[in-house]
Amino acid sequence: MTPAQQSLVEQVRARFGDRAAITDAADIEPWLTDWRGRWHGQAGAILQPSSTEEAAAMVRLAVEQGVALVPQGGNTSMVGGATPPADGSALILSLRRMNRIRAIDPGAMRAEVDAGVVLQTLHDAVTAKGLRFPLTLGAKGSATVGGLVSTNAGGTQVLRFGNMRALVEGIEAILPDGTVHDGLAGLKKDNRGYSLDQLLIGAEGTLGIVTGVRLKLVPAVHSRAVAWLGLASPQAALDGLRALEGLTNRVEGFEILPEESLKAVLSHIPGTRPPLEGNHPWHALVEAIADNAEAEPPADLLARLIAPLVDKGLIQDATISSSEAQAQAFWRIRDSLSEAERATFGPATQHDISVPVESMPRFMDSAAREVEKAFPGVHASGFGHLGDGNIHFHVRAGERGTSDWLENEGPAVTRMVHDLVTAAGGSISAEHGIGVMKKDELERLSPDRVRILRAIKASLDPDGLMNPGKLV
Amino acid sequence: MTPAQQSLVEQVRARFGDRAAITDAADIEPWLTDWRGRWHGQAGAILQPSSTEEAAAMVRLAVEQGVALVPQGGNTSMVGGATPPADGSALILSLRRMNRIRAIDPGAMRAEVDAGVVLQTLHDAVTAKGLRFPLTLGAKGSATVGGLVSTNAGGTQVLRFGNMRALVEGIEAILPDGTVHDGLAGLKKDNRGYSLDQLLIGAEGTLGIVTGVRLKLVPAVHSRAVAWLGLASPQAALDGLRALEGLTNRVEGFEILPEESLKAVLSHIPGTRPPLEGNHPWHALVEAIADNAEAEPPADLLARLIAPLVDKGLIQDATISSSEAQAQAFWRIRDSLSEAERATFGPATQHDISVPVESMPRFMDSAAREVEKAFPGVHASGFGHLGDGNIHFHVRAGERGTSDWLENEGPAVTRMVHDLVTAAGGSISAEHGIGVMKKDELERLSPDRVRILRAIKASLDPDGLMNPGKLV
Repeated sequence: MTPAQQSLVEQVRARFGDRAAITDAADIEPWLTDWRGRWHGQAGAILQPSSTEEAAAMVRLAVEQGVALVPQGGNTSMVGGATPPADGSALILSLRRMNRIRAIDPGAMRAEVDAGVVLQTLHDAVTAKGLRFPLTLGAKGSATVGGLVSTNAGGTQVLRFGNMRALVEGIEAILPDGTVHDGLAGLKKDNRGYSLDQLLIGAEGTLGIVTGVRLKLVPAVHSRAVAWLGLASPQAALDGLRALEGLTNRVEGFEILPEESLKAVLSHIPGTRPPLEGNHPWHALVEAIADNAEAEPPADLLARLIAPLVDKGLIQDATISSSEAQAQAFWRIRDSLSEAERATFGPATQHDISVPVESMPRFMDSAAREVEKAFPGVHASGFGHLGDGNIHFHVRAGERGTSDWLENEGPAVTRMVHDLVTAAGGSISAEHGIGVMKKDELERLSPDRVRILRAIKASLDPDGLMNPGKLV
Repeated sequence: MTPAQQSLVEQVRARFGDRAAITDAADIEPWLTDWRGRWHGQAGAILQPSSTEEAAAMVRLAVEQGVALVPQGGNTSMVGGATPPADGSALILSLRRMNRIRAIDPGAMRAEVDAGVVLQTLHDAVTAKGLRFPLTLGAKGSATVGGLVSTNAGGTQVLRFGNMRALVEGIEAILPDGTVHDGLAGLKKDNRGYSLDQLLIGAEGTLGIVTGVRLKLVPAVHSRAVAWLGLASPQAALDGLRALEGLTNRVEGFEILPEESLKAVLSHIPGTRPPLEGNHPWHALVEAIADNAEAEPPADLLARLIAPLVDKGLIQDATISSSEAQAQAFWRIRDSLSEAERATFGPATQHDISVPVESMPRFMDSAAREVEKAFPGVHASGFGHLGDGNIHFHVRAGERGTSDWLENEGPAVTRMVHDLVTAAGGSISAEHGIGVMKKDELERLSPDRVRILRAIKASLDPDGLMNPGKLV
């Protein structure tokens, strides 16, 4: 640690006790590398406030000492957003001790929680009150609410209730000068200038440290059903989704995948079975829910709405889960895609991209063809959240696969995918953020935008002490 | 005009024709004063781009010449947000010529429009396509979409679909450096750092000039009904609203008013009649809608849900409109409140304030009592959007009324109301913005916040050329 870091740690311990700062290398080590093992950093200490007041005091002390801080929740960033710099120039500030559910108000359908609350914990707490927090994603057992806010997280249930931005009613954060921004009053209307809440959502900790969040809740799921559709193409999937949306607002999930990805799951993941009998170029998982006992049961709803689409030929074949176990089995196929693809197909570049929803089917087709033409032998395909215009587009090494393909050719493939996305008016980061992973690409493709982001960053954090090296 | 302003006007005319810059004093004059006649400014010219490209070019020329610009739509700001400075140091940039409905997509339920489109024009255009833009307010015949975005406007239909922020899917704007921010691609997910769209909403033109907006549409109203409730108190009104919300999502309006305000309307506005027979301390107007023919008719819905609340004693009495004409008659009472109060009660300070919804009934009671105690003889009361926690709180001169009461005592009354709102965790501007009217008060009450707003403003508009003198 630098003398300034050392001094900061001592002051923090003196004021808030030994637990407030970890310096044991073995305890720090797990938090220096992102969960997928791609980025490695160094940090001499982890500061651990137990309250908003402590967090604010720590930031003020850090500002006095000129020590940079990397805020960390569950450390589940997909883009290295919570990994400290490699040179040890920053300390980690972990929100893990701030894990209190402050309040759940079932009548007003909202919760107020510490930023360090794990998503699964939040789910359980609001479910116990007969409600639901609808956002969910693979890392829910580790990801924290503060991290979800700071990355404006998405997931598999964005279709109906939106991403994190749509579910946040207010934010409490320590700004880079150590003042506390308190947006938790829950005002439904407040027009006192630029919204700091909105600015902090998706800011990846570069404008301050989120310490508390007020969240919107929705009615609990009374029952659900999952349909599995066989489809000719992504366009047929989108047409089917639009047809369903015109008839019900109870579709909450709509995920697509190509046949080859399904096959990879079936061959790799034990206990999985094909949902449909025949072969279909594309598949979609459709989840519908009921939030009360009086509503038409979701399986009946899906059967009633999907049957005419099969008759019309828009959908090739369909089956609907007849039990919760079967619904879970369908979701397990979707949730195992990344793992199965990795195991079956070998190295691939992965791209969390979005284009306007209506353009996605055409984009998937044309982008795949162009990439495969430019890099003969690779195979490009996508799966995921079609209804959000957000696909995880993977380019597999295929015949070009060698042990160092990712390292050698991966960056060129990634640049090409990003160029195609940008030309289509899309985003090179739909839901994972920029972090360290996409920083250079963002600047290459959107220099005007980065200039503006940097100006905002410099205005609030002139010394660059908040999550240095991320985003801008 | 200064030489720089003169030069800018000449360059604009040379490039974009005579219509692109108005310099005739008589043509400029109506746009120098806000619509309620409170603020008066000076400007030697009005620039009038007819396209985004022209607007961007004008901003770049203005930056080169160091000329400040005041963006103006319908000039219906309630807080002097579109009035040029009194010293003539800025020119007006009017969006009036940019009044094109660019596209309406009924399938995707969205519209893309120029910023200068008047709200009523937008309503008519989407209604013709069988859809609806739900936000509405008194100035809809003049207010433009760009102005509504820049003030994050509210109105009487916020309850179900939210304010402007909730209805904007993307923004196109000229930033202070003359670059075009294009957020119109309509990406449902885009996590490339701080959201410039969100930053521009409610920025009052101080961070750039909104030129185009992509808006969310909702199903058209198939039928509606309006209930008029007699109530003991604002708390009874809120309890009634919560009870209704627990049973339906089809309540779109919930406005409250005290008996004295109703009496003022009945005595002042020709043709108005009391909705209920007896006297009630408070009243509420409740609007419910159906968006299709199959839904339970709104009048039946309201009758079915309200009857048990009357039986329980939560609501003293209720009547439900039996025709569209009667629904309009009920709304006319609500919409005439300001006019009737002005005519009946004489001078009053008016406060567009919000507190957390649950606190509003208590706040209305305690704030009125405290203000009346501090200024004996005045009468304080509120009416409006209870379901949003947003009341227009008026303090009438009462026995203290003299011709110069507003001027002499008004500011002290306003400061006291703002102090009470701030102590209650509320906002001194719920839906009207800050403009010039509340700038000093915002700084007095929220200096930390203003410091941050100023830093952001300076980072994007270092020369202070965008709507100078407003907000910060």
